[in-house]
Amino acid sequence: MILSSGNFYKIDIILTTVSNVKVLVVMGSRSDSHIAEKVTAVLDEFGVEYDVEVASAHRNPKKVEELAGKDYDVFIAIAGLSAALPGVIASHTLKPVIGVPVSAKLGGIDALLSIAQLPPGVPVATVGIDNGKNAALLAVEILALRDENLRRKLEEYRERMRA
Amino acid sequence: MILSSGNFYKIDIILTTVSNVKVLVVMGSRSDSHIAEKVTAVLDEFGVEYDVEVASAHRNPKKVEELAGKDYDVFIAIAGLSAALPGVIASHTLKPVIGVPVSAKLGGIDALLSIAQLPPGVPVATVGIDNGKNAALLAVEILALRDENLRRKLEEYRERMRA
Amino acid sequence: MILSSGNFYKIDIILTTVSNVKVLVVMGSRSDSHIAEKVTAVLDEFGVEYDVEVASAHRNPKKVEELAGKDYDVFIAIAGLSAALPGVIASHTLKPVIGVPVSAKLGGIDALLSIAQLPPGVPVATVGIDNGKNAALLAVEILALRDENLRRKLEEYRERMRA
Amino acid sequence: MILSSGNFYKIDIILTTVSNVKVLVVMGSRSDSHIAEKVTAVLDEFGVEYDVEVASAHRNPKKVEELAGKDYDVFIAIAGLSAALPGVIASHTLKPVIGVPVSAKLGGIDALLSIAQLPPGVPVATVGIDNGKNAALLAVEILALRDENLRRKLEEYRERMRA
Amino acid sequence: MILSSGNFYKIDIILTTVSNVKVLVVMGSRSDSHIAEKVTAVLDEFGVEYDVEVASAHRNPKKVEELAGKDYDVFIAIAGLSAALPGVIASHTLKPVIGVPVSAKLGGIDALLSIAQLPPGVPVATVGIDNGKNAALLAVEILALRDENLRRKLEEYRERMRA
Amino acid sequence: MILSSGNFYKIDIILTTVSNVKVLVVMGSRSDSHIAEKVTAVLDEFGVEYDVEVASAHRNPKKVEELAGKDYDVFIAIAGLSAALPGVIASHTLKPVIGVPVSAKLGGIDALLSIAQLPPGVPVATVGIDNGKNAALLAVEILALRDENLRRKLEEYRERMRA
Amino acid sequence: MILSSGNFYKIDIILTTVSNVKVLVVMGSRSDSHIAEKVTAVLDEFGVEYDVEVASAHRNPKKVEELAGKDYDVFIAIAGLSAALPGVIASHTLKPVIGVPVSAKLGGIDALLSIAQLPPGVPVATVGIDNGKNAALLAVEILALRDENLRRKLEEYRERMRA
Amino acid sequence: MILSSGNFYKIDIILTTVSNVKVLVVMGSRSDSHIAEKVTAVLDEFGVEYDVEVASAHRNPKKVEELAGKDYDVFIAIAGLSAALPGVIASHTLKPVIGVPVSAKLGGIDALLSIAQLPPGVPVATVGIDNGKNAALLAVEILALRDENLRRKLEEYRERMRA
Repeated sequence: MILSSGNFYKIDIILTTVSNVKVLVVMGSRSDSHIAEKVTAVLDEFGVEYDVEVASAHRNPKKVEELAGKDYDVFIAIAGLSAALPGVIASHTLKPVIGVPVSAKLGGIDALLSIAQLPPGVPVATVGIDNGKNAALLAVEILALRDENLRRKLEEYRERMRA
Repeated sequence: MILSSGNFYKIDIILTTVSNVKVLVVMGSRSDSHIAEKVTAVLDEFGVEYDVEVASAHRNPKKVEELAGKDYDVFIAIAGLSAALPGVIASHTLKPVIGVPVSAKLGGIDALLSIAQLPPGVPVATVGIDNGKNAALLAVEILALRDENLRRKLEEYRERMRA
Repeated sequence: MILSSGNFYKIDIILTTVSNVKVLVVMGSRSDSHIAEKVTAVLDEFGVEYDVEVASAHRNPKKVEELAGKDYDVFIAIAGLSAALPGVIASHTLKPVIGVPVSAKLGGIDALLSIAQLPPGVPVATVGIDNGKNAALLAVEILALRDENLRRKLEEYRERMRA
Repeated sequence: MILSSGNFYKIDIILTTVSNVKVLVVMGSRSDSHIAEKVTAVLDEFGVEYDVEVASAHRNPKKVEELAGKDYDVFIAIAGLSAALPGVIASHTLKPVIGVPVSAKLGGIDALLSIAQLPPGVPVATVGIDNGKNAALLAVEILALRDENLRRKLEEYRERMRA
Repeated sequence: MILSSGNFYKIDIILTTVSNVKVLVVMGSRSDSHIAEKVTAVLDEFGVEYDVEVASAHRNPKKVEELAGKDYDVFIAIAGLSAALPGVIASHTLKPVIGVPVSAKLGGIDALLSIAQLPPGVPVATVGIDNGKNAALLAVEILALRDENLRRKLEEYRERMRA
Repeated sequence: MILSSGNFYKIDIILTTVSNVKVLVVMGSRSDSHIAEKVTAVLDEFGVEYDVEVASAHRNPKKVEELAGKDYDVFIAIAGLSAALPGVIASHTLKPVIGVPVSAKLGGIDALLSIAQLPPGVPVATVGIDNGKNAALLAVEILALRDENLRRKLEEYRERMRA
Repeated sequence: MILSSGNFYKIDIILTTVSNVKVLVVMGSRSDSHIAEKVTAVLDEFGVEYDVEVASAHRNPKKVEELAGKDYDVFIAIAGLSAALPGVIASHTLKPVIGVPVSAKLGGIDALLSIAQLPPGVPVATVGIDNGKNAALLAVEILALRDENLRRKLEEYRERMRA
Repeated sequence: MILSSGNFYKIDIILTTVSNVKVLVVMGSRSDSHIAEKVTAVLDEFGVEYDVEVASAHRNPKKVEELAGKDYDVFIAIAGLSAALPGVIASHTLKPVIGVPVSAKLGGIDALLSIAQLPPGVPVATVGIDNGKNAALLAVEILALRDENLRRKLEEYRERMRA
């Protein structure tokens, strides 16, 4: 439907500087960096800017709380064992939090259950064990809901995947 | 920064009817409806419109493919056993897909692993076993990224949760 | 019992070219080829012709659907993690589908449950983790129901196994 | 290609009485009869004739061996706990054996592993825990490879399932 | 050894009011109160004073942090699912924290792993699933290290247990 | 009590040659020989004679049945995966059967469950995963019930173990 | 071979009173008595005398040690959770110890692993979860090695089982 | 409140020699020494004196009982498989016992369940699989309840951990 055609308006356009950094990648320990690299490789491929931090939910809860309070659109939290990091971030933010369980003991089933089995009220989007790639793709899918450019890149990505 | 102030432009504004229905809730079997109700109760509470369908990835793949091709913002897929539904939807869409494992056998660990352990390239956001509430909240968090109203409701919701 | 002896009939015999390729071996990822080789080694030993494809249920569902629509007698689907491939093929065919879970994470228990725990209505014949050999033998047993030659080879095979 | 058109031949047609009983359903214990009934309900629906026996691999191995030596086309073996029955039948026949794990303890994971994890050389087609329906459908799919009538019924069955 | 016998000293004795409340029992949800009651029954039996709170690590992290900052000698934290509560308390205190996993899903193995598998640096003393009694006894054992009266009661308690 | 003292009797003593070979060690596959060697090392140490055989319950049931019918006092059966061997031997003998689960897949939990979870009526004495040593010691304990010499050796063995 | 025929000897025959009580059934807790009853029902059926005791390895280790020191031929130890009872008895005796895991939590897998996974050097014969019947039958098989009467009863028992 | 100021009393002060050795570290087998070293490294760092012993609950119960009877403040027991050591020590002492499960088989889940799932009445403080560091820190936290010096060191330790 054409609402108004041919009328003249005076328009004031005001630009606000908006940060391009949309994703925070947090790993619970430096030993998780091989998984963080899978995440950032995909974010780089899609041109999504991100910050990376190391912060343990158990050893440095203040830092985790501070990071969770920042204005990122999506958080990706990577942790092994009793992987509390994703849930703790989710308890301090209302933005989507994606959790990546890392296989440190028991093949990673401890981390998977610790992340997936959160109580009703505080969700975390869990991906597969060590599957940093899917965490990043999920973040891209979420950001693409309001970014046509990302959407197109996703379509090309999947097209290549099929080839 | 003011980009342009005081200039005159001729503007054509074209309105497209956009559906308010943002979320599709799909359950693999009618026996999953007790979980679907947890999802819709939360979506109702937040005033998020949604459609509900029953479609089995294994018994009716064509219907699942059709549903996945529709223009919803977020898909919530509920399934037990070899819970392929979330992954199959994810294989046909680039929108975020949230998977809810249902406890039908083995306490639901079969469904949790079937949903969480997707291969790199096709992500699904897994929530806890039978945890329809968190699936809905995650959907709301994702939609709230571009909806200030939803964001405010989320803040009020969590405020009440703390009381 | 002799139904009719000595009568004369006019007979028109029409031959249709029938493919000898009876088995399709599909693996979800190239990384599963060490299991596919166990399958094809047995099929070669029994002289059963087969085709081999790589097609991911999640990354390339269209290709999987196309392959499942072809006129093979038996499908052998090999997949790890959330191993949806066998079930997805089974959802598109009425021929017997044999699923081989591959140990990629958690020793393969994720793939075993994903393949074995299909919902009532869409069966897959699951064999053991990484056990491509048994998948092939099961296919041979199925084909041998109408092939005396294969049956004889099976008897010799088991005879050797006992020695 | 038309091989021969219009020639006259003398034909002798000899009929051999062939049993219609194609499937043997064996349960390891009378307490498994609720699963056996799921199997026979489907076989009845498809008009596949079958015999039913109770024979424990551990308590009555001779009877199991005898049954396995009979000329059925497909064996469906139902067992819980250390569910050896399907494997023991498979060790005495070269016909396809379908195993149904029953949940007696530990949710049936003991039976699932006991049936699925057979050694290379002796295959069993495992279906899901307590999933007698899929065992029967798998048997029908196998028999339908040489029975057009069954094939048509399978197509109708799946058609109804989609509705 | 007698250090000094028979000398005269001037003594100033200053009493500081010390709280008798030594143990804080925190449950993650009101639905855990049946386990909390097992804890308090034992503490009552030993005359150990305690406070009881309901505070979810995920739904109300601020409250948990405040409680963890209080001057109790021992914390007993009761939680199910992704039972982060004990670890989160431990991240905010240097006092011993005892964690009780509650069976809500999967028989409680999710909670057990979430509590037991904490990363090096932040310990929690895990007891068995639903075993509130042992949590209380462990707290008593810890407090008895500097309380002869409690020690005597422990000896009597075990004596009765043996009868 | 002295039954009869000082009477004269005529005595005929008849000696029957009795085999010293008391234990049969059967492994399901040659690949289990590292576990069989743990068994025979202990039997050698105690001077218990034994025979060793390779016989698969699934690949060569006739041989297993023949072996189970022989007159050994104790059977030690070693098997991995769907470890049916101990149960199948137990189904053909009334002598004590000791089962040793071997870790081939899933850390051996499949074999442990397959051996331990036998149905009521046919017992097998299960020892730990790969624990051939305990299987042999258990056999020695059983034989020592009627062999003072073995009993003394057991006492010395445990004495050394404590040192 | 006739060693000596026709010679005359003076013989002194001394009878020692030997207890007929051959089996001690110990349960870790009174709550295990439903399993103990399965054991004693079978022992009664075979006419094997037994004593029954309740003694917890953790709550009353002295009593367990005393019981383990008595001169029974076979010990049957029944316990749930961290089922240490069978192993503790085995650490104090050189007689065969049969362990029965009881399902109290986690379907009994905790008890099964606690009993089966004993370290090399101290064997316990583990039977299935809650399977008191097989524990008793294993005890009978062990005792029957030197008791022809028991052996005959075992044969009759199995004969009936096959019917 | 000043209770009494300025009065004169005659005081007899009697000093008792108190050992500084507060912690006993026991491992079930020499093969657990890599975990014991993690424990003692932390105890050394905090200046807590300790003794180290090797004593198997199953192979040398007398030694374990003797050690458990000694006057240590805290026991740290390290064991794999059917890890009975911590529970057996706890059955002989009323001092806090910390258990460390060691991954020898099944990733250590057997040891974790064997230690954590103790029956009500005899508590053990379980830490994570192979997590000797947390066992030592938990011991320090317990001792710090009456040792200001240790408390300060704990604060510094955690401060460093956050850096």
